[in-house]
Amino acid sequence: MNLASFNPETDLMLERLVDVPRDRVWRAWTEPKHLMRWFCPRPWTTVACEIDLRPGGAFNTTMRSPDGQEFPNLGCYLAVIPGERLVWTDALTAGFRPSGRGYLTNDGGFYLTAVISLESVGTQTRYTALALHADRSGRDKHAEMGFAEGWGTALDQLVEHCRAELPYG
Amino acid sequence: MNLASFNPETDLMLERLVDVPRDRVWRAWTEPKHLMRWFCPRPWTTVACEIDLRPGGAFNTTMRSPDGQEFPNLGCYLAVIPGERLVWTDALTAGFRPSGRGYLTNDGGFYLTAVISLESVGTQTRYTALALHADRSGRDKHAEMGFAEGWGTALDQLVEHCRAELPYG
Repeated sequence: MNLASFNPETDLMLERLVDVPRDRVWRAWTEPKHLMRWFCPRPWTTVACEIDLRPGGAFNTTMRSPDGQEFPNLGCYLAVIPGERLVWTDALTAGFRPSGRGYLTNDGGFYLTAVISLESVGTQTRYTALALHADRSGRDKHAEMGFAEGWGTALDQLVEHCRAELPYG
Repeated sequence: MNLASFNPETDLMLERLVDVPRDRVWRAWTEPKHLMRWFCPRPWTTVACEIDLRPGGAFNTTMRSPDGQEFPNLGCYLAVIPGERLVWTDALTAGFRPSGRGYLTNDGGFYLTAVISLESVGTQTRYTALALHADRSGRDKHAEMGFAEGWGTALDQLVEHCRAELPYG
């Protein structure tokens, strides 16, 4: 596999050592019943999640705003290395089909490829989330939307969930 | 791997039995020096080709029009099953990075995922090229641009090239 390296001009990164073993973080990312509990920063919630954990498989979630509006997000896994690395994009949907252009043209949005890398450090995990964008404009928009706070809060929720609900292997 | 199945509403397909063994067709698709000889319907030519044959690897070509204008096409391999199947998209560039939105917004274009499947039939090859689009609009634009003629002529050129230049294994 060839994976783009981090470019501060176009990409965003969140890196943190979390006090949860690596296999628990992996389960939290790859099992819908767990992912739905932490994936959206509260008071937003994740009300649906479809995971087909293989290259070309669907990674679909639906977020619900506090006032009840629902926002489906369709994505596709690109690489799955169990316990170590998860790569997906919203530029493609299930089966590697290109995403529609509506998303880009309606709201001045951007496409994203996300790379989650996990590394054991004793019983803890070095957690690295990388957001790859096409260009600086995508990076800047994502930063303005609150990447650091949003992904950081979701990670806090992941840790809290794992410690409460996934204490044993 | 999960691969989208053909949908006549959104996709296009070219299927043909060609009188070239499967390994020669594979080489014609995956070695720049061969690909450059047949990839563009003449009188257009392919003047540059970069192939990094693995998921996330670059598949970049540059086409030159008869009046000398050059058109770079950047793409990314999604799946590589040697001798059998090649999947790439222009919705992503090397390293799985999303493509820029300029392509879509400047010319009303579309993104494409291509699937080339090869199957031996005696010493011949059942060749299937599938073009997956996001929606009907992408399919229709690609059809109007001359998918059937363009991909058909390129395949004629591939066969001609293989028979002349790749007669032995």
